[in-house]
Amino acid sequence: MAYFDSASSAPLHPVARQALLASLDEGWADPARLYREGRRARILLDAAREAAASAVGCRPDELVFTSSGTRAVHRGIAGALAGRRRVGAHLVVSAVEHSSVLHAAESHESAGGTVTEVGVDRTGRVAPDAYEKALRADTALACLQSANHEVGTEQPVADVAQVCGEAGVPLLVDAAQSLGWGPVAGDWSLLTASAHKWGGPPGVGMLAVRKGVRFAPQGPADERESGRAPGFENIPAVVAAAASLRAVQQEAVAEAARLRALVDRIRTRVPRLVPDVEVVGDPLRRLPHLVTFSCLYVDGETLLHALDRAGFSVSSGSSCTSSTLTPSHVLRAMGVLSEGNVRVSLPPGTAEEDLERFLSVLPDTVRDVRERLGAPSAAAANGATATAPTTAGAEEAALTVDSLGKRCPIPVIELAKVIGDVPVGAVVAVLSDDEAARLDIPAWCEMREQEYVGERAGDGGTAYLVRRRA
Amino acid sequence: MAYFDSASSAPLHPVARQALLASLDEGWADPARLYREGRRARILLDAAREAAASAVGCRPDELVFTSSGTRAVHRGIAGALAGRRRVGAHLVVSAVEHSSVLHAAESHESAGGTVTEVGVDRTGRVAPDAYEKALRADTALACLQSANHEVGTEQPVADVAQVCGEAGVPLLVDAAQSLGWGPVAGDWSLLTASAHKWGGPPGVGMLAVRKGVRFAPQGPADERESGRAPGFENIPAVVAAAASLRAVQQEAVAEAARLRALVDRIRTRVPRLVPDVEVVGDPLRRLPHLVTFSCLYVDGETLLHALDRAGFSVSSGSSCTSSTLTPSHVLRAMGVLSEGNVRVSLPPGTAEEDLERFLSVLPDTVRDVRERLGAPSAAAANGATATAPTTAGAEEAALTVDSLGKRCPIPVIELAKVIGDVPVGAVVAVLSDDEAARLDIPAWCEMREQEYVGERAGDGGTAYLVRRRA
Repeated sequence: MAYFDSASSAPLHPVARQALLASLDEGWADPARLYREGRRARILLDAAREAAASAVGCRPDELVFTSSGTRAVHRGIAGALAGRRRVGAHLVVSAVEHSSVLHAAESHESAGGTVTEVGVDRTGRVAPDAYEKALRADTALACLQSANHEVGTEQPVADVAQVCGEAGVPLLVDAAQSLGWGPVAGDWSLLTASAHKWGGPPGVGMLAVRKGVRFAPQGPADERESGRAPGFENIPAVVAAAASLRAVQQEAVAEAARLRALVDRIRTRVPRLVPDVEVVGDPLRRLPHLVTFSCLYVDGETLLHALDRAGFSVSSGSSCTSSTLTPSHVLRAMGVLSEGNVRVSLPPGTAEEDLERFLSVLPDTVRDVRERLGAPSAAAANGATATAPTTAGAEEAALTVDSLGKRCPIPVIELAKVIGDVPVGAVVAVLSDDEAARLDIPAWCEMREQEYVGERAGDGGTAYLVRRRA
Repeated sequence: MAYFDSASSAPLHPVARQALLASLDEGWADPARLYREGRRARILLDAAREAAASAVGCRPDELVFTSSGTRAVHRGIAGALAGRRRVGAHLVVSAVEHSSVLHAAESHESAGGTVTEVGVDRTGRVAPDAYEKALRADTALACLQSANHEVGTEQPVADVAQVCGEAGVPLLVDAAQSLGWGPVAGDWSLLTASAHKWGGPPGVGMLAVRKGVRFAPQGPADERESGRAPGFENIPAVVAAAASLRAVQQEAVAEAARLRALVDRIRTRVPRLVPDVEVVGDPLRRLPHLVTFSCLYVDGETLLHALDRAGFSVSSGSSCTSSTLTPSHVLRAMGVLSEGNVRVSLPPGTAEEDLERFLSVLPDTVRDVRERLGAPSAAAANGATATAPTTAGAEEAALTVDSLGKRCPIPVIELAKVIGDVPVGAVVAVLSDDEAARLDIPAWCEMREQEYVGERAGDGGTAYLVRRRA
């Protein structure tokens, strides 16, 4: 039994547990009160703020505790936008931000603001000059994560902060995935984080706002946490969050090196062990503990269940595992395969044996899922070799596959089964109403060196056109 | 050492502590995940919701957990107002609601909505027909607390709910102070609560929205908690909150009777033991554990410090203890004295000896504070007896007391010192720039049976006019 989903939530760190227990009896009173129980609570809160600020790399009076990372993001973005309302209502975000950032951006847009989404390359990384181009005279705020939560790619925060600084635009950095590994470098203006990502308790987020950054808290007034985070302070959890943050940061250098090596094993060996796999994300500039790969012809949810039965807890950005039936926006922005997607994020202390066992279990697990789905066998499907690109011919499809009503990975499996039936240079049309097909068919073409021609409206769905190249 | 401020925050209930510890190891994972740790977290969350809903008296799918009572109120009011946007933007609240409700109302007003504040009688109670009068064709929502947090008076929730129901207006009940004592009677539409008020952990609020009540969550979207409470679920705290709510409700009948008797001792004996005291709030229709009284010629903050040194933790609605220098809006709405205000709220299990010790310590403590402030002696000041009202004469003040720059209770003390220096029927003007004087001078007149004539603009402040009646 191995839990490999620490990017989603990490088990409570022993230091967090200790600090929580120790402060339950001292930290329940209202820290605004003048009596002894209130003063004791105030002392705990102040000490936690000092510790957390030092771990973030800011002043204690720049940091407030919120009730979650999501709340920190929502409050931070709303307050920073309102603080610069006179400048304008333009917001810049990357296309691969956490959903809390993107939802705040949607909310801003529906309230009349404008949003520019900066794209990423195939590793999930933004380019600083893309941020530079996105900034306008009316830009109130830019947001960029420190590292991506789905593929682990580190973002060039310091460079983007410099670009923003030169334009006079504050930069909010969502550091949820990286803060446990160390403070965020660069001259950011606002920073958000979430304690349960580093083994702190749930119920604690952090929002840092540098002195001098204009900030106008939104929503009903509240005197707590400098007016930036309404609601009674959760002091035992805040104490535990701060203590565990310092503890994990102290262990970070050694543990990062160890986990980085384990993740490298996955990055290197999974493509050798499992046919038709794409490992995504930046191989070097990445979080030490996180790797994501996608398996052609595999249903992500079925694979997750199979791995769960084998004793491994991982997550997936495949559409089939989500109630919305759309693939991960991160994988989509990167333009990589989303089907059969697996994210492995190793908690500190992950045993080497567990990782090796995962590597030994994975190939058969994937093969079983593929067999059940009737996927083309790897040997047969893998036989194609690269040839010179065919010249563009007529877009008339030689063959149309009707995949209407079928969910990922079936449309791709059906495509793979028939591509050999048409002559080289001919076009296969896959008619699908599954949102994942828009991402997975081009990704399949890239992986299998077939030519993705494009899409057009079809009867009851979209026709995705693929030209056989070999 | 006795903590008598459970209305502010209660120490962790043993059941809450047990449940919290038990669920720390099971409840840290993301309940939306499909693997075993996620499923375990989901089971805990579902069970907590069942338990809490049964304690509230609603269906589990009507209840969500928020990160605090304040958040429950803010989210509840915003969502209910938005859900009935087509009906109108009129909000009705009582004048004695918790600040979280009043701040949400201010926020609604500054966004273009309208708000009617329903007043209370001298016990702090609203009249159902006052709500009836306040309702309009464009009323989107009405709010009423189940019981007041500062003076303990129970509100006629069932009657107000009926009035609202007949008008087709949903009623949101802030049950923060009463839920530990039992479910709220009556046909409310929305209900909010806060776990740390009943000995649950901090970081948990509850929002119930009855089926059929129109509700449109505001702010950035989030899929958690039916879209009504963004942010990662704090499952260990939620489990502890639900378990302790059931536990305190089970103990409620016996403990309420016991604490009610202890509070009755305060209500009866404090006015006998301490001269010039006003016990406020409804003597019968009240929370079992809470009582508030105000002491003439006393600085609330000094009294709190003195009681703290004597081993008692209580709170105060006096202006002098607040950073805003305005007296409690509750006492102001009731029109009662705010100076030297003390709120005693007994946690379950309060020992009789502690209460007796409080009663034995209080008289000397108040006397010491009065002496230090140079207050008129009780005997001398208490000599006046009621006479027939004097007829209104010239408003010309026979004597003006300049209390500019002096904080409560000094203006009242200076008034009390000179009232005997003017003839019966003559007027004393107290010139003050302290906001508390507006409340405390009329309240002093009522207590001392002098005639409060009114106020007029004075040089550098307000002149409060008092006619000597005896």
